[in-house]
Amino acid sequence: MADGTPVFDLDIESWQAQREKLNEHTLQNANLEIKRFFSLDSQTYRAGALDAKTKELLGLVASAVLRCDDCILYHTIRCHEEGTSAAEYTEAMNVALVVGGSIVIPHLRRAMARWKELEESGK
Amino acid sequence: MADGTPVFDLDIESWQAQREKLNEHTLQNANLEIKRFFSLDSQTYRAGALDAKTKELLGLVASAVLRCDDCILYHTIRCHEEGTSAAEYTEAMNVALVVGGSIVIPHLRRAMARWKELEESGK
Amino acid sequence: MADGTPVFDLDIESWQAQREKLNEHTLQNANLEIKRFFSLDSQTYRAGALDAKTKELLGLVASAVLRCDDCILYHTIRCHEEGTSAAEYTEAMNVALVVGGSIVIPHLRRAMARWKELEESGK
Amino acid sequence: MADGTPVFDLDIESWQAQREKLNEHTLQNANLEIKRFFSLDSQTYRAGALDAKTKELLGLVASAVLRCDDCILYHTIRCHEEGTSAAEYTEAMNVALVVGGSIVIPHLRRAMARWKELEESGK
Amino acid sequence: MADGTPVFDLDIESWQAQREKLNEHTLQNANLEIKRFFSLDSQTYRAGALDAKTKELLGLVASAVLRCDDCILYHTIRCHEEGTSAAEYTEAMNVALVVGGSIVIPHLRRAMARWKELEESGK
Amino acid sequence: MADGTPVFDLDIESWQAQREKLNEHTLQNANLEIKRFFSLDSQTYRAGALDAKTKELLGLVASAVLRCDDCILYHTIRCHEEGTSAAEYTEAMNVALVVGGSIVIPHLRRAMARWKELEESGK
Repeated sequence: MADGTPVFDLDIESWQAQREKLNEHTLQNANLEIKRFFSLDSQTYRAGALDAKTKELLGLVASAVLRCDDCILYHTIRCHEEGTSAAEYTEAMNVALVVGGSIVIPHLRRAMARWKELEESGK
Repeated sequence: MADGTPVFDLDIESWQAQREKLNEHTLQNANLEIKRFFSLDSQTYRAGALDAKTKELLGLVASAVLRCDDCILYHTIRCHEEGTSAAEYTEAMNVALVVGGSIVIPHLRRAMARWKELEESGK
Repeated sequence: MADGTPVFDLDIESWQAQREKLNEHTLQNANLEIKRFFSLDSQTYRAGALDAKTKELLGLVASAVLRCDDCILYHTIRCHEEGTSAAEYTEAMNVALVVGGSIVIPHLRRAMARWKELEESGK
Repeated sequence: MADGTPVFDLDIESWQAQREKLNEHTLQNANLEIKRFFSLDSQTYRAGALDAKTKELLGLVASAVLRCDDCILYHTIRCHEEGTSAAEYTEAMNVALVVGGSIVIPHLRRAMARWKELEESGK
Repeated sequence: MADGTPVFDLDIESWQAQREKLNEHTLQNANLEIKRFFSLDSQTYRAGALDAKTKELLGLVASAVLRCDDCILYHTIRCHEEGTSAAEYTEAMNVALVVGGSIVIPHLRRAMARWKELEESGK
Repeated sequence: MADGTPVFDLDIESWQAQREKLNEHTLQNANLEIKRFFSLDSQTYRAGALDAKTKELLGLVASAVLRCDDCILYHTIRCHEEGTSAAEYTEAMNVALVVGGSIVIPHLRRAMARWKELEESGK
């Protein structure tokens, strides 16, 4: 933020590393149905009639109204990778805010800070 | 459905008429802040950096994971008006299903039946 | 509504009668813990440091953001019985709308129609 | 109920028939990922380390705290088919009530009435 | 707590400072509709037919049943500023607990600890 | 995890100690109805028609679909104490994942890591 102090315990790179470790552990201990769910989850966001960027925006808004910071950050990173502009990202979060209400605001604040972190890291 | 019996109490036209009546009554009795919320709600879906179709798909998926049939039907109608294809509609609902889980299925079933009703009515 | 057609399957009196029947059936078949929950539920809304009207408004807003029409109607009736004014009722629903977002609107529309039904019935 | 008037628009048999019709329509119009989700959903409740009855009770309680009547009724029927006793069913709903709070009560009332309908139909 | 170790990563003052920074960043990057939402959010809690204290209690209970710690803490601070007594605060949280169920308990525990922090800081 | 760095701020023992402290503080400041809720909460999980292990699995799945890490961890510990096997625990979490959707995944990841922590601690 403006004064240089970090807002988050983990920067995006460390967050991704930890997520990866936990994912591996989960899949090593998962049954067949959980593994299939993870696989289906990946397939769902592949470009089809809708392109990958639109699907990631859908995943972002779904995550935002359900208020899960991990899911919001994951889709924020993916939206950024798919070339979403800041204005597009903001409008998607605007839909989430209006549908989901002020209870979404703490997540919106963190999402906007994470977006900035992505822009500054040039990732 | 296949055997001609109706699934819903109200067809889409009657549902829209009732929604309109209730909306009017609400706004006549609302305070200034509620009126502003309704106005803001409309503004949010206007084309901007994202086009109107994409915004309606975002509203649809948000409504589906939050499991509100009225909101799902409203955005289903709007997606149809904005020229969403059946394949695009299905992929958006697929994202909602995977993010929101099997608890979304009863709403998915009704949404798909409503989509067919829209296609058949040629609206 | 304006043209005289009913919006709801059951008017408030019939809704209350059905709720009463289902409650009796539930309590006849409940275990001790469920019965205790029902008793605790009643105790919670008794006047204490907060008066009964304020507690019913709290129950109303909680029910509205969690989007349960039965619970909203129950607390709407109780707010009316405790002498809540239309302006107070509207402001409480306004808080629910802003906290809970546009997903609350279908419930707000029905709640406002039920409030009118209560005022017209002189109950 | 006691006075013979029906509580539900559809008895269980009609509800099942309508659910079946909507399911067929959904699957005919679904993409591959949605079909896979439906298949995965079925696999999840097959007996494994936990028996089928326990898994249906888990599905019931998950549906009850998420407050979806269709899902609650589906798992209520399945619990009954798997030989769940009335006392076991009531204790599972008791867990749902305590975890999910009074907002679950309208669903609990309907679930208990459906359970009675199942017992009386001898299904 | 009793043994002097802190329960929270941030004391209330630091939490407020961080919230303020994130709010500023969000509003600097927000579109017009998000800014309007933030403005509407503030207007909603101004004294009207209901006084400011009652409105904050409504916001508190809505936040508690939706289980958002940031929102609960914000309204806890505002309730304290508006002269809510400990007994009134406890009764409002009691309504949230009964409506929302045991899933609210972790938030209730933290809210009660924050209330104590407010009383001890004399803020 | 594999490389020895901790995933959680608090290990299970420290988490339990903090939970205990906060519980004590809450009950010291609670009104009668909140105390009764806590007592009812404990009674609900006592063995009855369903054994204690099954009830803890029900509490676990309810907590997982409602996405509360504190509640998930509490029931994970209790499931472990009641002799739940890793395969049973995984199948219960599988039900939660399918009912609740991918939004449950971050909680599933942490739950599986906590389960491993319990197994390694031999508690």
